[in-house]
Amino acid sequence: MSIRIGIIGYGNLGRGVECAIRQSSDMELKAVFTRRNPESVKILTESAAVRHIDDIKNWQGEIDVMILCGGSATDLPVQTPKYASMFNVVDSFDTHARIPEHFANVDAAAQASGKVGIISVGWDPGMFSLNRLYAGAVLPSGNDYTFWGKGVSQGHSDAIRRIPGVKNAKQYTVPVEEALASVRAGENPSLTTRQKHTRECFVVLEEGANAGEIENTIKTMPNYFADYDTTVHFITEDELIKNHSGIPHGGFVMRSGKTGWEGEHNAFIEYSLKLDSNPEFTSSVIVCYARAAYRLSKEGEKGCKTVFDIAPKYLSLMTDDEMRAKLL
Amino acid sequence: MSIRIGIIGYGNLGRGVECAIRQSSDMELKAVFTRRNPESVKILTESAAVRHIDDIKNWQGEIDVMILCGGSATDLPVQTPKYASMFNVVDSFDTHARIPEHFANVDAAAQASGKVGIISVGWDPGMFSLNRLYAGAVLPSGNDYTFWGKGVSQGHSDAIRRIPGVKNAKQYTVPVEEALASVRAGENPSLTTRQKHTRECFVVLEEGANAGEIENTIKTMPNYFADYDTTVHFITEDELIKNHSGIPHGGFVMRSGKTGWEGEHNAFIEYSLKLDSNPEFTSSVIVCYARAAYRLSKEGEKGCKTVFDIAPKYLSLMTDDEMRAKLL
Repeated sequence: MSIRIGIIGYGNLGRGVECAIRQSSDMELKAVFTRRNPESVKILTESAAVRHIDDIKNWQGEIDVMILCGGSATDLPVQTPKYASMFNVVDSFDTHARIPEHFANVDAAAQASGKVGIISVGWDPGMFSLNRLYAGAVLPSGNDYTFWGKGVSQGHSDAIRRIPGVKNAKQYTVPVEEALASVRAGENPSLTTRQKHTRECFVVLEEGANAGEIENTIKTMPNYFADYDTTVHFITEDELIKNHSGIPHGGFVMRSGKTGWEGEHNAFIEYSLKLDSNPEFTSSVIVCYARAAYRLSKEGEKGCKTVFDIAPKYLSLMTDDEMRAKLL
Repeated sequence: MSIRIGIIGYGNLGRGVECAIRQSSDMELKAVFTRRNPESVKILTESAAVRHIDDIKNWQGEIDVMILCGGSATDLPVQTPKYASMFNVVDSFDTHARIPEHFANVDAAAQASGKVGIISVGWDPGMFSLNRLYAGAVLPSGNDYTFWGKGVSQGHSDAIRRIPGVKNAKQYTVPVEEALASVRAGENPSLTTRQKHTRECFVVLEEGANAGEIENTIKTMPNYFADYDTTVHFITEDELIKNHSGIPHGGFVMRSGKTGWEGEHNAFIEYSLKLDSNPEFTSSVIVCYARAAYRLSKEGEKGCKTVFDIAPKYLSLMTDDEMRAKLL
């Protein structure tokens, strides 16, 4: 019998989850839940239902794992604990500073309901976090480096679009090649924000907007751009659509450490991702952890978990024997 | 109280374990066990004992985890099950084809004794295996690639040294740059053995040996060299000692996959290692899993396990709260 999956929220991430389920032979998408009028939401999976979010309580017993595809700012802090009281849940909560609080809330709900909730799944937090943990444990004497990009930052693109006179915009975060090279050379550099990443912006202006003023507004924007070397390109809407419609991303997690009695030898670990579609990859990770949530729940586990708490075998479609024979 | 560690076998790997324990604030090396005369074995840790292997049964209750540092060909198939009947054990068994059999033997012993045995720990098998599992689970539609090097292959160096007329030799396995580039470009190439790696040999001849003949013997040696493009350099013993005394290694695990409804987007995952000392890094991984063996045993677990069965958190010195706050 297939693992029956529900999706809450059908944006880029929800659609990505739908695609990842299609690649998972042990899973079936049962229903998508939305705050919109369900009639207005067209999904790709013919066999799945689209329902209003208010209908969700009637689906207990019909869905093994509910995947929450809302945003971290306001949706997930409310939704994940709420639905963990009814279902096994997985989310991609990515406000790093608020993870401990979110964990506690989801854990309380899931302990009470006897369900499993897995939070902060994706690639950062997610696969990058795992690599930070493994590398740091293996090389206790060393330094961690995480670089993001080249890729589209949704938050920074939005910040530019909010500037009066900007019609549309896309912002790329780009790791600085010299910084990557220095880390890989084992130089253990101390890098400032500016030395690690640059920001490249493609901006479409409203008619009559002042390009120089807008460029200055972008480059001096606190938190978002002021601490970076930022390049601004003004382009037409056609160019933006033609050349900047994708949502690629990626990045690097590195650890530069020492081995030997006096730390006389270098050891370097690097993990990297290069993704044409950031939300589809995030969704692919989430769907793996939905499999884990299902299996852990079957084993009688409950409460909130993160990628750190889950043995790798729970992610794989292979049997334990197959894994040992083919992957070990 | 520290985790009390024992080491069986004091070669490069045993010495590496000793170094890694020194970097682990929660561990203490209690004793090294050897088949040699213990008086003849000088170790680095002043507080630890050196004992003959026959004395090991008297150390039950004194040692929490025994780390086996023998070879996979003849030592570990006998030793790991044998000592799993007395201790929690970790080994680095790396004969891939015989892992299922080794697992079964260690599991039988450890189930009977109520101990935990973790086998095939290191980087391949080990960290590379983990990356093959994670990447394959996240991107079910895709291809795996593992490359080794640039690094010293002990087995291939030994094979050259056994040729009459060869005084000493070192062999490097080198990944082919074009192959790496093709995989990274998402071309999903089918690669032959020859297309993936080259072999570079540094050979010191005995006086009067025939260089041409020996070069030919190396290049046509079945299994070891015949399927590869092999380069042979004849050098002096001084040059070998000066330039080729290290045991560096490393490699790459890559997965090139597809995301999206019709697999229309590429996703690429790469994990790589660059190690000045292969045995010291292997040992660093082993010591992490000794921590896991200790903790799992404390929780009442028993039987044989691999890296696939162990949640990442068991490797880290951080508390669960710290991990979530700092690494997630």
